[in-house]
Amino acid sequence: MKSQLFVVSLREQVYEYLRNEMTTGSLTSGSTINLTKIAEQLGISKTPLRDALIHLEIEGFVTILPRRGVMVNALALNDVKNAYEAIGIIEAAIILDCFDKITSAHISRLEELNERMIKDVQTNDFSRLFKTNLAFHNVFNTLSGNPLFNKFMLPIKHRLYDFQGQSYIHDWELKNCEEHSLFINFLKQENPRSAAMILKDFHWSYSVNEAFIKQFYAMTEQN
Amino acid sequence: MKSQLFVVSLREQVYEYLRNEMTTGSLTSGSTINLTKIAEQLGISKTPLRDALIHLEIEGFVTILPRRGVMVNALALNDVKNAYEAIGIIEAAIILDCFDKITSAHISRLEELNERMIKDVQTNDFSRLFKTNLAFHNVFNTLSGNPLFNKFMLPIKHRLYDFQGQSYIHDWELKNCEEHSLFINFLKQENPRSAAMILKDFHWSYSVNEAFIKQFYAMTEQN
Repeated sequence: MKSQLFVVSLREQVYEYLRNEMTTGSLTSGSTINLTKIAEQLGISKTPLRDALIHLEIEGFVTILPRRGVMVNALALNDVKNAYEAIGIIEAAIILDCFDKITSAHISRLEELNERMIKDVQTNDFSRLFKTNLAFHNVFNTLSGNPLFNKFMLPIKHRLYDFQGQSYIHDWELKNCEEHSLFINFLKQENPRSAAMILKDFHWSYSVNEAFIKQFYAMTEQN
Repeated sequence: MKSQLFVVSLREQVYEYLRNEMTTGSLTSGSTINLTKIAEQLGISKTPLRDALIHLEIEGFVTILPRRGVMVNALALNDVKNAYEAIGIIEAAIILDCFDKITSAHISRLEELNERMIKDVQTNDFSRLFKTNLAFHNVFNTLSGNPLFNKFMLPIKHRLYDFQGQSYIHDWELKNCEEHSLFINFLKQENPRSAAMILKDFHWSYSVNEAFIKQFYAMTEQN
């Protein structure tokens, strides 16, 4: 009996598949998921599909409508605002708390990743840019040694970049890279307060980024 | 087909049932959940049970061991440390960000709830004390208007109080109430920095509370 009850790896595979369908644009914001079709495509039963959808619902990606199906959640501007505020507060706090753990190797890694991001922008590789950006922030987010922070932030960051396909705003991404440079300089100057301030009050400030955010998500709606 | 696929309310009922079994001590830390027995007791199929367990796993309450069953997670001291750190950072940030929204009605509500907590300690009503404590913190946590914070913090707070039954440390709870009083006084003095400091550096500081924490969770292990 137990042997059939949970096959976690299959659930995770289906979860990753559905997340990828959202990122690449096969599952669009506000659309309804055709469960029968997906189960057929993947050659799986509805059980692991159902498991993956519950996971996605808890993380905010979909809404399960009892007896009516499953809808891919649209990202409202207010969701973006809440996401920015939450991430800014946590990343700034991590920098203030973990500043003593930052070594020259971390600084070099941050510089290397920021240079790679600028190349990703130049080559229009949005998918790689998103991953490089995550890696940049992870250099300091993992210093806390507290897995709760990334468990909270990663699904939120993923939601912010869903449904973008290959479209992004060149100037906005370059501005982000400039803020990364400022942030690195403050770390080099051993100024954790200013490094935290750049993160919270500029990089993850909704009002500072509002014009770009509105442009970015408006672009998406037209896709 | 769709009609049988998701019945959310049943999943939520089973989730609440299992959470309650953990709090009251019927499901103990480190134990394995007998799925067949629970499905029989509740007169349900394994599907809503499975759905509820996935929800509990994502929130950290249980671990699903593929092909081997479901285990109730023990709370390690390191889990408590991470939980305290995360909650302290977020609640302090909320106070600093939302200080302007705090009215005299909020202050009165905080005073009323803290007085009720002292009564709960005096009457040894641990279950009510936990709820009153959550309500106290919610007075300011909801001011942010950002649902992400409570979505993150509530399951963590619940985990901290699991498996306690009716046993708690009188002196620790009274110390918590005293810190609540100090916090309220700083709000009255319009001193958000000190109010945030009390939350982060005392009330939710792992090192400040370490002796009590170790006593509390050691007590539980003997239960």
